[in-house]
Amino acid sequence: MDATVFQLRDPAFEARVRESFARQGIMGLIGARLVHVGPGSCEIHLPYREDLSQQHGFFHGGVLSTIADSAAGYAGATLMAADTSVLTIEFKTNFLAPARGELLIARGRVIKPGRTVTVAETHTFAVADGTEKLCAILTATMMVVTHHDEKTHA
Amino acid sequence: MDATVFQLRDPAFEARVRESFARQGIMGLIGARLVHVGPGSCEIHLPYREDLSQQHGFFHGGVLSTIADSAAGYAGATLMAADTSVLTIEFKTNFLAPARGELLIARGRVIKPGRTVTVAETHTFAVADGTEKLCAILTATMMVVTHHDEKTHA
Amino acid sequence: MDATVFQLRDPAFEARVRESFARQGIMGLIGARLVHVGPGSCEIHLPYREDLSQQHGFFHGGVLSTIADSAAGYAGATLMAADTSVLTIEFKTNFLAPARGELLIARGRVIKPGRTVTVAETHTFAVADGTEKLCAILTATMMVVTHHDEKTHA
Amino acid sequence: MDATVFQLRDPAFEARVRESFARQGIMGLIGARLVHVGPGSCEIHLPYREDLSQQHGFFHGGVLSTIADSAAGYAGATLMAADTSVLTIEFKTNFLAPARGELLIARGRVIKPGRTVTVAETHTFAVADGTEKLCAILTATMMVVTHHDEKTHA
Repeated sequence: MDATVFQLRDPAFEARVRESFARQGIMGLIGARLVHVGPGSCEIHLPYREDLSQQHGFFHGGVLSTIADSAAGYAGATLMAADTSVLTIEFKTNFLAPARGELLIARGRVIKPGRTVTVAETHTFAVADGTEKLCAILTATMMVVTHHDEKTHA
Repeated sequence: MDATVFQLRDPAFEARVRESFARQGIMGLIGARLVHVGPGSCEIHLPYREDLSQQHGFFHGGVLSTIADSAAGYAGATLMAADTSVLTIEFKTNFLAPARGELLIARGRVIKPGRTVTVAETHTFAVADGTEKLCAILTATMMVVTHHDEKTHA
Repeated sequence: MDATVFQLRDPAFEARVRESFARQGIMGLIGARLVHVGPGSCEIHLPYREDLSQQHGFFHGGVLSTIADSAAGYAGATLMAADTSVLTIEFKTNFLAPARGELLIARGRVIKPGRTVTVAETHTFAVADGTEKLCAILTATMMVVTHHDEKTHA
Repeated sequence: MDATVFQLRDPAFEARVRESFARQGIMGLIGARLVHVGPGSCEIHLPYREDLSQQHGFFHGGVLSTIADSAAGYAGATLMAADTSVLTIEFKTNFLAPARGELLIARGRVIKPGRTVTVAETHTFAVADGTEKLCAILTATMMVVTHHDEKTHA
């Protein structure tokens, strides 16, 4: 898997992804930052705040899934043509350890790009006292939609 | 499935669930409300705001999953003993239609309660112009933890 | 969900599904029988044999998933046009109880039909001493492919 | 992830895993072979036969999931104590490409070992004309059970 070389269809993929990220209202609300965009990969950071927590004070699993889903989706979007976008059709998150610490890091990468369907995964790490710990893995299926289709999905 | 009768181990389950919900910081941030708690079931509502959106202005799939995960988890929690709580160990969300409208309604119910492992599902509906439309299904596995265990999970 | 009325695009769906089932070599090998096909639904039975077991003598989870996946896929196929077929792009199985007994019954039904993507679920029951017990739930995403596309998927 | 060093609790893990595999009746029926067992890893091979197929003549997704589930489960089992065993509580398979070829290779590895819950993943490759192609990824959650518990699961 590590040697995968992806074909780029849109050299301006980074600007396109950053522009889309900026339109995701939820990212602003929770304070998530798009830290890295590369061919087939995407990294999102989320500093801890009390209002992102579940009942024990850790990051809520849904909040974690929010940045992990976007990291997977944007990893997929980097490989797509300029006039397309991505819809998540499903994802699963396995929670491996409490998401406890001062920062979450979601690292998404494409497993299988495709004309119609793309599969990506995100490994999410909690950083506590400067040490990263893998706390969740997400696998997602995305459907590629052209811009004239995306309003009519389903 | 419809005729399932669940055994209640804690008659005060509703107060316990509502107290836990109130401690989930993220629910306050996004404006989610716990509307119903019953034996093996839970319903959470989330009115639309622009800062809950993905790039096309609909509810973000991660936000939807946040309330759907909590609805499944609290559905499970209703059937548990007073000195226990619930950890989500995995969930999958299938997105069926864009989460577009003025309100999301997440209805969680227990599929299989258990001593150690509980499985629940949540159907999430988008309400647009007063009409409900099923837009996502989530299935989740929860682990039952006693209070002295829960800080040391993993 | 119960009141869903599905649109039929191919009145001869049952013959089409039965013909496809007959071509699945694995169904003959394990002894699975297609018991019911209806609009948006499908039921497959599998009598117990020792050579279908996992290490404790129960039905293997993969065997269960084999009939549950086919039940979901054929439930989806019933609603499709005559010149199309279905590819499973993902499924998750949650195992609720040991698959122990003389018979497995997989009941698949469509949750959301679609032009491109269909979502279905299968409830699988183990029958022991004549009593059905729900032992697994599967949710699957299927992609609709036209016959000239299906050889070139991915 | 690559540098993970796992703790072994049972030096005789390989004999224990091979003995359990030999008791899985389904592996004999389909002709699967346990090719490799290491600390936190397991590899299973399955040569093609017509009676393992879906309707287009490729390996059936359920058959693929059967060996992938066992590869994940036995990867987990290698790290467990001698008097325990593993129950799969859920798995998801994403199908990336048709499982077409003369051989399937399922390579399972542990992502997160745990006292109670273990998470593993399996990458499954189809070998056609001697060339491996990744055709599915499975992520699974397993519960560790002691031998006196396992008959009473759920």
